[in-house]
Amino acid sequence: MELKIALLPGDGIGPEVMAQAVKCLQAVEETFGHNFIFSEAPVGAIAIAKTGNPLPDETLQLCRDSNAVLFGTVGSPEYDKDPYAKLRPEQGLLQLRKKLGLFANIKPIKAFSILDRKSPLKKEIITGTDFIIYRELTGGIYFGEKQLSTDGTTASDLCVYSESEIGRIAHLAFKSAKSRNNKLTLVDKANVLETSRLWRRVVSKIAESYPEVALEFMYVDNAGMQIILNPTQFDVVLTENLLGDIISDVAGVICGSIGLLSSASVGENHAMFEPVHGSYSQAAGKNMANPVACILSAALLLEHFGLNEEARAVQMAVYQSLRKNIVTPDLNLKTKYGTDQVGDFIANNITD
Amino acid sequence: MELKIALLPGDGIGPEVMAQAVKCLQAVEETFGHNFIFSEAPVGAIAIAKTGNPLPDETLQLCRDSNAVLFGTVGSPEYDKDPYAKLRPEQGLLQLRKKLGLFANIKPIKAFSILDRKSPLKKEIITGTDFIIYRELTGGIYFGEKQLSTDGTTASDLCVYSESEIGRIAHLAFKSAKSRNNKLTLVDKANVLETSRLWRRVVSKIAESYPEVALEFMYVDNAGMQIILNPTQFDVVLTENLLGDIISDVAGVICGSIGLLSSASVGENHAMFEPVHGSYSQAAGKNMANPVACILSAALLLEHFGLNEEARAVQMAVYQSLRKNIVTPDLNLKTKYGTDQVGDFIANNITD
Ligand SMILES: CC(C)[C@H](C(=O)O)[C@@H](O)C(=O)O
Ligand SMILES: CC(C)[C@H](C(=O)O)[C@@H](O)C(=O)O
Repeated sequence: MELKIALLPGDGIGPEVMAQAVKCLQAVEETFGHNFIFSEAPVGAIAIAKTGNPLPDETLQLCRDSNAVLFGTVGSPEYDKDPYAKLRPEQGLLQLRKKLGLFANIKPIKAFSILDRKSPLKKEIITGTDFIIYRELTGGIYFGEKQLSTDGTTASDLCVYSESEIGRIAHLAFKSAKSRNNKLTLVDKANVLETSRLWRRVVSKIAESYPEVALEFMYVDNAGMQIILNPTQFDVVLTENLLGDIISDVAGVICGSIGLLSSASVGENHAMFEPVHGSYSQAAGKNMANPVACILSAALLLEHFGLNEEARAVQMAVYQSLRKNIVTPDLNLKTKYGTDQVGDFIANNITD
Repeated sequence: MELKIALLPGDGIGPEVMAQAVKCLQAVEETFGHNFIFSEAPVGAIAIAKTGNPLPDETLQLCRDSNAVLFGTVGSPEYDKDPYAKLRPEQGLLQLRKKLGLFANIKPIKAFSILDRKSPLKKEIITGTDFIIYRELTGGIYFGEKQLSTDGTTASDLCVYSESEIGRIAHLAFKSAKSRNNKLTLVDKANVLETSRLWRRVVSKIAESYPEVALEFMYVDNAGMQIILNPTQFDVVLTENLLGDIISDVAGVICGSIGLLSSASVGENHAMFEPVHGSYSQAAGKNMANPVACILSAALLLEHFGLNEEARAVQMAVYQSLRKNIVTPDLNLKTKYGTDQVGDFIANNITD
């Protein structure tokens, strides 16, 4: 298969971890006889520095012309500290999601039994955890109108949702539940928010077309608790943008390191794959960042194009690195392996 | 001391747990020679059923005329299932907060070492956890304009904050940090929300008046993770309404049962004390609900009026019940004690 893959390494540890993911994709290319055409472009703080724009036109165009986007991370401490900044690295990511129409962010949450030791949660709590979060990604308070009064003393953010925005991701989530354990949990704050009540109505209606799927509702505050108290109760979780941002990071603790979590963001015409972790600038350039989340994002990319055997080969190579303890310091403080060595090990172990 | 205390038991398990808290307050009254004048009024689903109003005028007036309010819980499954309901039990609580001006919700989060076994988190993670969450309670998306388009296909919720709303709770939180370990963490989503950026600016400015307090910023998604990964890093956490609702429930898992968590909601002129847990209707009337959160809320009430010795006596009696395993089924599946027996034991053990 020939695939044009846009590489957007971004800021912080992005370039380092992406280099490892590319190694792995190249190993897949050779082993399975594919043709992956990589092109790189800037996004985030580095793009602001180079071009004055967190998402330069050329970068967007490259993504549009590619079959898939592999994304690193964006964000930089200088912007985090400055609440006055007009240009922000995160705008690069948010605009990319919006302009490519990537309305569904899909995050698999699975307990890796080899890593029980690393999880802050007790083994009996996490064993068997295997669920997927569907987070709406191009609507809600992220993209609603923002205002700041002229005297700077009052600010507002508008959260808006329409039936069609809810419907398209709900269908994806129901289909996923149907192919899994037939349970869908809608997480919202319907006892307070009008938008949440719209979500409940639209999702309840769509549920009629998926009679085999059991639909349940859960308030987000309770969900934040239940994910930790009893994560095995979930199969597919569906939620809106901001609530999804929070609960998917809460769920991230289950597997012990956010350095292992990957995600896919999909729309009608485009798909992007990215690690869940942030830019972690303190670690940048130190060859210590965990490349696994980015490598597993590459595996999700392969799956997206039906290259299931190839994806499995990458995942197996990752498990082997975990089993052999060939890991970065987030997973083993006394490790002698850096980002690069872990990437090499995984790439070298990709076999069919 | 003479105190007029309004009792608002509300729905579900509210009345049962409140009865135990009242027993304990009466034990304090006798033991320490105070005069507590209790008056009860309906709120929530039960108030809708009785009066057609989740917060009847008489209930509000009683709260205004009292020195403090002890609140049970509101909420009912019939409303949870109906996203079309115009009247909702939760409105009783939200209006009460707004009308009494209870702008700061204060939640102590402490690991009870007797309950390590119950926490989903590993002992080494939670040991020593002791922080307080200050959640803004009368602003933000809870109270901003809500709209539903006439054709019912688009909904919106507006999140608004003003400098003064942020300032008054920030001062409380800084004062609290000053009396504790001099650290304040502002939790927000400043990389996306305009309101969060206003929070950062206002709080940074106020920080100048508290030079001994170290101020740090944390994105809410990261905070949801950090609370579980490393809860001992926090001293005082300050945040807005919705984000606070979520992270305080996430933090609730640390101590193993939400049935133990109490909170105070304070304003210029009024104060209200309530358990963190919800109405838990499945358990209502079964004498199985944990009364400890409501009893500890009564202890916060005593503290609020400077009755520190009295508050301590209640807390000690609670610890004794935990130590002797005189607890409800949420803490011990094989217990022979119900809500009532646990309440009796605690009330009988309040001594000076
Ligand atoms: C960087 C930030 C804007 C982003 C988000 O909040 O969506 C990130 O936290 C994520 O989840 O991808
Ligand atoms: C009942 C509900 C409206 C309420 C809230 O969200 O504030 C509750 O979750 C709380 O935290 O007191």
